[in-house]
Amino acid sequence: MNIIYAIDILGTFAFAISGALVALDKKLDVFGVIIIAFVTAVGGGMLRDILIDAHPINWIGDLNYLYTIFMAVVVTFLFKSKISHLSKTMFLFDTVGLGVFTLLGLKKGISYNLQPIIALIMGMISAVFGGVLRDVLTNKIPLIFEKEIYASACLVGGFTYMLINKLTEVPENINFIIASAVVIIIRVVAVKFHLELPKIKNDVFTKK
Amino acid sequence: MNIIYAIDILGTFAFAISGALVALDKKLDVFGVIIIAFVTAVGGGMLRDILIDAHPINWIGDLNYLYTIFMAVVVTFLFKSKISHLSKTMFLFDTVGLGVFTLLGLKKGISYNLQPIIALIMGMISAVFGGVLRDVLTNKIPLIFEKEIYASACLVGGFTYMLINKLTEVPENINFIIASAVVIIIRVVAVKFHLELPKIKNDVFTKK
Amino acid sequence: MNIIYAIDILGTFAFAISGALVALDKKLDVFGVIIIAFVTAVGGGMLRDILIDAHPINWIGDLNYLYTIFMAVVVTFLFKSKISHLSKTMFLFDTVGLGVFTLLGLKKGISYNLQPIIALIMGMISAVFGGVLRDVLTNKIPLIFEKEIYASACLVGGFTYMLINKLTEVPENINFIIASAVVIIIRVVAVKFHLELPKIKNDVFTKK
Repeated sequence: MNIIYAIDILGTFAFAISGALVALDKKLDVFGVIIIAFVTAVGGGMLRDILIDAHPINWIGDLNYLYTIFMAVVVTFLFKSKISHLSKTMFLFDTVGLGVFTLLGLKKGISYNLQPIIALIMGMISAVFGGVLRDVLTNKIPLIFEKEIYASACLVGGFTYMLINKLTEVPENINFIIASAVVIIIRVVAVKFHLELPKIKNDVFTKK
Repeated sequence: MNIIYAIDILGTFAFAISGALVALDKKLDVFGVIIIAFVTAVGGGMLRDILIDAHPINWIGDLNYLYTIFMAVVVTFLFKSKISHLSKTMFLFDTVGLGVFTLLGLKKGISYNLQPIIALIMGMISAVFGGVLRDVLTNKIPLIFEKEIYASACLVGGFTYMLINKLTEVPENINFIIASAVVIIIRVVAVKFHLELPKIKNDVFTKK
Repeated sequence: MNIIYAIDILGTFAFAISGALVALDKKLDVFGVIIIAFVTAVGGGMLRDILIDAHPINWIGDLNYLYTIFMAVVVTFLFKSKISHLSKTMFLFDTVGLGVFTLLGLKKGISYNLQPIIALIMGMISAVFGGVLRDVLTNKIPLIFEKEIYASACLVGGFTYMLINKLTEVPENINFIIASAVVIIIRVVAVKFHLELPKIKNDVFTKK
């Protein structure tokens, strides 16, 4: 399971940088940057653990998350001018984190004997809620509600995992990687081709 | 208790539609609409259960909430042009939900041996917090802080229940219905006659 | 420990008034004012208790918090025109509350056998999260992310407590007072001399 733990930390790192960048953009002070980075990186797992009563919750039970976030903030401060040129790298990190967080959350849900659909939702919450918190705290409408097939990618990836698990003999670690890849590929393809979930033509409200 | 469970589901359905309508108005995508509907419908009970440590929390312990919300979103999509003409029906649903959620939350609080005033607050939280979350996530000042005698109706209704329970021999189910009716009537009357809670004339801040 | 409990109540009172004043400024109705006062006063301890699974959480386990908040709202309503002239007094109350809440949260964390750094964070959360909630609910970017060495003062004060505790034989109550004083002094000095945490010169985003 060491590889998965390593990717977990890498995902935390990427999410923390993404939070720190938004906070910088909002001209928050050093402390605000740390908080937003923290919330973005561990917010999803934290909500999941509160909802399923898994104590100690993620960042309380493992200090490595805190250290990782702190390093991510330092890196953001040091290389902020470079990071903007690295947006593709960042996007990749963030997307890898998305895939891994989804599967980690899903597996934690399963290990708590939750119903499959609930476990699936826990996977999604783990992956996306940090970003929601980041946006609420910086006073924006959460990104996932407006753009990007973000949360949907998590659901499809999580569902893939459960399907493979049910129907085949594929070892769990391999399945983990396949399903993470599904999340990652969907998101990359969606962003590349500007795919969006449909909006409902909203003739009801436009006359207001 | 079957009637109460049925009204609980009906209230969930109504709250989910109210959330979906706000999300449509904000032009969120399909996924955003589902999330906001979900949060509006189960947010109150979820917070109550987290606060009083009641696990599994509402929508994790009973999948019918999820199914109901999903159906509500589908109905909203299909009949969105009609629903605007049904605003009176929707208002009624929403108000019935408000009454029922208040009493359900209150009774859950009592069954956890909370102090009466805390149980009363739990009733109110169950009924109104979903709407608060909906508004925060769509970046508005929560409606209940600005308009409508919304939360106050819950408190009065909940108090009525406790009073009747203490002072009379009225059977619990009848009491449940009476107290729910109190919530519903207060809200209907308040909206009909544009009643508002008083604001404090605020000479302190206007000179700013 | 009675003095500390008294200061806890005093801090709750001060925080509730600070919340009520913000709510008045936003022209919320009576009920909205009570909610915001409540959330400001107990939000920090509530989040702390949820995170570390300490049930019953603060205001559920001790009704005095509710009574204190209610009295604070009444006082705000009665003396609202005076309170603006008492801004120095209010600032002092609020700052004392900040110091005490930090130390109370820290000690609770320690009593739950949390790692020192986690206990430190719990102290900070207890002290500042109420204000964050207040700002999110009234639709502002949380103040602590933009101005004031607020949260940092809590961290330094909490750290002082742990250092003294580790290295000296100073009795706990004295240590509590010293460390609270550190929080208070840092904040007072920072506000007096307009100290701010550095912001990163943000050449990356300014070209947008």
